[in-house]
Amino acid sequence: MTYAAGRHFLQIPGPTNVPDSVLRAMAAPTIDHRGPEFQAMGRELLRDIRPVFGTTNPVVIYPATGTGAWEAALVNTLNPGDAVLTFETGHFATLWQEMAGRLGLEVHFVPGDWRHGADPAIVEERLAADTGHRIKAVCVVHNETSTGVTSRIPEIRAAIDAAGHPALLLVDTISSLGSIDYRHDEWGVDVTVAGSQKGLMLPPGMSFNAISDKALAASRTATLPRVFWDWGPMLAANERGFFTYTPNTNLMYGLREALRLLYDEGLENVFARHARHAEATRAAVRGWGLEVLCLDEREHSGALTAVLVPADVDADKVRAVILDRFDMSLGAGLGKLAGKVFRIGHLGSFNDLTLAGTLAGVQMGLTLAGVKIDPGGLDAALERLQAG
Amino acid sequence: MTYAAGRHFLQIPGPTNVPDSVLRAMAAPTIDHRGPEFQAMGRELLRDIRPVFGTTNPVVIYPATGTGAWEAALVNTLNPGDAVLTFETGHFATLWQEMAGRLGLEVHFVPGDWRHGADPAIVEERLAADTGHRIKAVCVVHNETSTGVTSRIPEIRAAIDAAGHPALLLVDTISSLGSIDYRHDEWGVDVTVAGSQKGLMLPPGMSFNAISDKALAASRTATLPRVFWDWGPMLAANERGFFTYTPNTNLMYGLREALRLLYDEGLENVFARHARHAEATRAAVRGWGLEVLCLDEREHSGALTAVLVPADVDADKVRAVILDRFDMSLGAGLGKLAGKVFRIGHLGSFNDLTLAGTLAGVQMGLTLAGVKIDPGGLDAALERLQAG
Amino acid sequence: MTYAAGRHFLQIPGPTNVPDSVLRAMAAPTIDHRGPEFQAMGRELLRDIRPVFGTTNPVVIYPATGTGAWEAALVNTLNPGDAVLTFETGHFATLWQEMAGRLGLEVHFVPGDWRHGADPAIVEERLAADTGHRIKAVCVVHNETSTGVTSRIPEIRAAIDAAGHPALLLVDTISSLGSIDYRHDEWGVDVTVAGSQKGLMLPPGMSFNAISDKALAASRTATLPRVFWDWGPMLAANERGFFTYTPNTNLMYGLREALRLLYDEGLENVFARHARHAEATRAAVRGWGLEVLCLDEREHSGALTAVLVPADVDADKVRAVILDRFDMSLGAGLGKLAGKVFRIGHLGSFNDLTLAGTLAGVQMGLTLAGVKIDPGGLDAALERLQAG
Amino acid sequence: MTYAAGRHFLQIPGPTNVPDSVLRAMAAPTIDHRGPEFQAMGRELLRDIRPVFGTTNPVVIYPATGTGAWEAALVNTLNPGDAVLTFETGHFATLWQEMAGRLGLEVHFVPGDWRHGADPAIVEERLAADTGHRIKAVCVVHNETSTGVTSRIPEIRAAIDAAGHPALLLVDTISSLGSIDYRHDEWGVDVTVAGSQKGLMLPPGMSFNAISDKALAASRTATLPRVFWDWGPMLAANERGFFTYTPNTNLMYGLREALRLLYDEGLENVFARHARHAEATRAAVRGWGLEVLCLDEREHSGALTAVLVPADVDADKVRAVILDRFDMSLGAGLGKLAGKVFRIGHLGSFNDLTLAGTLAGVQMGLTLAGVKIDPGGLDAALERLQAG
Repeated sequence: MTYAAGRHFLQIPGPTNVPDSVLRAMAAPTIDHRGPEFQAMGRELLRDIRPVFGTTNPVVIYPATGTGAWEAALVNTLNPGDAVLTFETGHFATLWQEMAGRLGLEVHFVPGDWRHGADPAIVEERLAADTGHRIKAVCVVHNETSTGVTSRIPEIRAAIDAAGHPALLLVDTISSLGSIDYRHDEWGVDVTVAGSQKGLMLPPGMSFNAISDKALAASRTATLPRVFWDWGPMLAANERGFFTYTPNTNLMYGLREALRLLYDEGLENVFARHARHAEATRAAVRGWGLEVLCLDEREHSGALTAVLVPADVDADKVRAVILDRFDMSLGAGLGKLAGKVFRIGHLGSFNDLTLAGTLAGVQMGLTLAGVKIDPGGLDAALERLQAG
Repeated sequence: MTYAAGRHFLQIPGPTNVPDSVLRAMAAPTIDHRGPEFQAMGRELLRDIRPVFGTTNPVVIYPATGTGAWEAALVNTLNPGDAVLTFETGHFATLWQEMAGRLGLEVHFVPGDWRHGADPAIVEERLAADTGHRIKAVCVVHNETSTGVTSRIPEIRAAIDAAGHPALLLVDTISSLGSIDYRHDEWGVDVTVAGSQKGLMLPPGMSFNAISDKALAASRTATLPRVFWDWGPMLAANERGFFTYTPNTNLMYGLREALRLLYDEGLENVFARHARHAEATRAAVRGWGLEVLCLDEREHSGALTAVLVPADVDADKVRAVILDRFDMSLGAGLGKLAGKVFRIGHLGSFNDLTLAGTLAGVQMGLTLAGVKIDPGGLDAALERLQAG
Repeated sequence: MTYAAGRHFLQIPGPTNVPDSVLRAMAAPTIDHRGPEFQAMGRELLRDIRPVFGTTNPVVIYPATGTGAWEAALVNTLNPGDAVLTFETGHFATLWQEMAGRLGLEVHFVPGDWRHGADPAIVEERLAADTGHRIKAVCVVHNETSTGVTSRIPEIRAAIDAAGHPALLLVDTISSLGSIDYRHDEWGVDVTVAGSQKGLMLPPGMSFNAISDKALAASRTATLPRVFWDWGPMLAANERGFFTYTPNTNLMYGLREALRLLYDEGLENVFARHARHAEATRAAVRGWGLEVLCLDEREHSGALTAVLVPADVDADKVRAVILDRFDMSLGAGLGKLAGKVFRIGHLGSFNDLTLAGTLAGVQMGLTLAGVKIDPGGLDAALERLQAG
Repeated sequence: MTYAAGRHFLQIPGPTNVPDSVLRAMAAPTIDHRGPEFQAMGRELLRDIRPVFGTTNPVVIYPATGTGAWEAALVNTLNPGDAVLTFETGHFATLWQEMAGRLGLEVHFVPGDWRHGADPAIVEERLAADTGHRIKAVCVVHNETSTGVTSRIPEIRAAIDAAGHPALLLVDTISSLGSIDYRHDEWGVDVTVAGSQKGLMLPPGMSFNAISDKALAASRTATLPRVFWDWGPMLAANERGFFTYTPNTNLMYGLREALRLLYDEGLENVFARHARHAEATRAAVRGWGLEVLCLDEREHSGALTAVLVPADVDADKVRAVILDRFDMSLGAGLGKLAGKVFRIGHLGSFNDLTLAGTLAGVQMGLTLAGVKIDPGGLDAALERLQAG
């Protein structure tokens, strides 16, 4: 029996459900990227993208996906052989540090259990021990898309300061920006890495670096080779609303509309909505008698929830049943977590009834896949939603 | 608190949720309605529209909404002063007979309680009594959009035959076509009236008359004035794939895509899907301890469910709470039922998880509006969905 | 050799080239036509549609094509057997009076040569002779889409007044509204008939009646049967932003965007643009040594130009060559003019370079079809365009 | 006077006019990039992209613009300090060699006059002299977007072979692929660099590397740092239809439709159409008494034509007049050619009448800008178009 009618439930933790009005905006004809109409849009976007990062500093917009923005953050600020301090918070933190290694950096990778965020105490300890200041950057993934754990960036900033260490703070907000409260300037972040396809509610294909003055200064002397990712010429061209090479115009149309939606709703409301949906989701998971992967109450993600399945269950089989029977995509367990968790994305353009449908699908799918669950998970979630 | 993020739940019993691919198809540039490209599309549509009506006879496509197709069915087949037999099955049956009266027909309107379909026994009784054959047409609404009651057309056909009466059988399938099993030829219907905005999954703006040979013969002598609605020139132009006046080209693009979707899924599967969603919805209603409006188990609608609220509750207030809190539109009680029922549309492009979200919204909304309901309505619905 | 690449040149005199932004607007999801969001749009459109008609009175919006609005103008204001005065200005005037006859009106059809507009002198003469005031309406096609001749409505109004005759003035502006200066109120028109698919730059499927107080008064006593087209209940529902039956929501989205475009450009500028393009087109036709169908300099259409081909040429063959070789659709000769003219539409969303491409295609096509033309037609047109 | 009505003429040499059906395809909802539906599309595209490159080898698809694909070609095949032989054919060749230098390569840059392609004789001479095989790659821009000169790749291949030199041949086809005949395999190219926004008729945001076995072998030992651009993991993931990081799904929808359009027309027909439009454009330029920048008849571009303006004219002023008066964007002179040329793009989704409109706009604009031109340029172009 097929269930192709109706809309697919895209409940992976990104790419997220792109609002119809964003898709339509992107379908406008491509214009001259060197003409006055483009220039006006370029200026507008380069200005209006800043508040969502919580910054008044420049944000570089790349016509490339998020992995590129990771690379950009590193190659613009660091030199071959520089040490970076990173944390094994999950799959993406692991990939980022691998990238750092491949780019010629010396990676200090603090092991982790994939159920906690980066530990501020270890940050302080490691940096305090680095009296020679060999560590040039601390790299943290704000929201680990593979685990649903959100690291506490303000506390990490405080830890760096407590250690009196000059390392840059580079933060990946790919799956948090526009979903979870984030403040580049206030939290003293030096480079914020982001992508289009999560809280910004756009298709993939665009990524970002928000840049502190300190990071900008570092970029002036950094010697890792870079051209495509180079901030220097880009920031210079951006002054006039233009870009150093062909920008991806149609995604920019989408960004304009997506920012309009975000600011219309109000960032505070956006964050509160995500937090509330995350609470309802955890209520469901616990109501089923299952375990949320994240172990620290301070670190639950507002963007997604990773759910541990019983040891004798293959989480991918559960996902397959749900896709087949209910036309819903959930996130797979990645890396070490393959088969052990599934991930429910509840970020981006999303609302109460879609969450209710999502959790109903998970509940039915678990049962159909033969997983023993307690009744009442969905009811617990609805209770939370109903409370407002 | 606003809930503007995510998609609106449009769960009125039509217009229904138009599939994305249909909306995109409609956004193609308008073409010359007298050129060869149009002609090929015209021929294709005039052929491919027939199976959804269960007919091999011609179907007229009007560039106008469904009310117009009601009028077309009457003015093409009847003469001033002709008698028509109609049934008070609900709001739309009432409107249709009012139209008949205003067009100069003599209306025999059999009263009803809005909780049953047209009664085949009364059809037979009335026609048998009409020995002079003054009644020229029997008009029945197949699926009453205002009540969620589906009249039994084959039994009505049998009743007409049992009475040995030559009256035409005119059937309104506006909210059933493409959702509930329907067979123009096999059931001996003379004119089937339909619209684009329900089971055909299109926006409003297009309507249809499927025409039996007997109806066509009647149209050759019928004298009610008609021009825009006249079948004669239209059928002649249709022979070549063209239309007597400007057709609504972009909705035709949509129709092409919508038919493709329906036939890809398979009409049998489409009907089964609707029936199953209707069962799940009734399970929810009964689980809440509320009453389904339709009283005859043989007549439950596959397209929508009308729910009676307790006497001290204003159903429109419930709907307002649900729209405000959960961004879902439900159908209001119409005419005699205003304030007494709300209607849940579960037709068109629709699937299990959207139904789950819909019923979750109704359940929460009822509670928030202060309606006393039993727990377990949604669970009962999920049980039905889970069963496949 | 095929020429499928690039955009089709749709240069028939309607449907016209729908702006991309209008097509995108129409692709938004259909909403509840009884809900508050729709109501706000309904009110906005019912207000904003008026200036393009030059009226402060109500305009009825039909979810049906223009032929229906013709019928609406007649059935709302007239009684069976009423006489109407009409003018054979071309194919569409002929069709409209045929409709009037079929609806039971007594048609006084003033013959014409299809190369002039309705003659104000004859209007005055006929009405002055009608001392018994049997003529209840004068029906005029403002811009004859089949001939490219624009009747002089203010002079016709003056003629009616000079005759001191109470007949209503009904005007078809289907191919002039939004392209050629038109003023319902100032010119004393009683019913203005219009459609979506020409100067309003929308796909077909929507039509209009603008209604004077006098016409409204007439409708209160008029006895031609009407339901779908009835102004009464529609105007009542419109008061609250709603419609008596399902409106065609997605075309309304398009109308909102199209009106925005028209008012942004400014109606005066829109009319001037059309007049200028018409002048350039006539310069081309005359430059080729061909004849413009319209014979009165005061009556040249701003919306289209009908071009007479030499007697030994089949105009449809020319059109076929142009469609085949240059992927451009031109209008055919209709009725009496079949094969004798082709029509160049230059209305709606249109600009100088598209006109230049259009005329280049006509020039090349004429040559390829073996029509003897003088060189320099296109150059003459460019000279006009270049002049600003 | 504004001319905002109608469609903008985007006649820069890319981004090009994206077909409506491609824009609509891109507006489909984003799907799970790790799910089966995506996988099927990934496999299809990775297979179907090859013929347009003239290769049966793998083509890497980057979710990034063309400048990135330049970088990818270099960093995947070369080592720090490797020498590359490049040619000053214009602005983009200059940028590419600058990139090579910044990435740590030793650039041998053969000076040029920006009016000729890369000289095969010099290729042979330089490589023959490089007896130590220090030169590891020859980098050539196939079609110089800044000059409208197309280098003769087969002759360059022959020159490399004649010198018996093992250097890789890297070719930029950003503005030729899908417009000008190109054959990666047959011509013995090692890496072909391409982008989405020209002959492939897509918005910017996607780029490509077609890879020979020899290039692939080189990549296994090449030591320039690379992660985002690394072919290795990408080709491995591509085997299963997936990508190493989030692909730009919606542009992939567009690519699927664009390839369908190209193959439907037939690549041979596509190339012939471009060549014919280029001939017509040169006929116009010469008809005006102006000079085409390209000096070698064998090297005229099928994609664009750069036009030299008289020494006392500012080409940018001409472009500004044309944009202001005729809503057409033309390409500016870049680098050394700033103010001295304007560039007419005639590539991508384009047809005869749009070219006619384009050249009419250039002719009128030149006159309005006060440039002395001969009459008859447009006529000469039409003569060419008319000839078929």
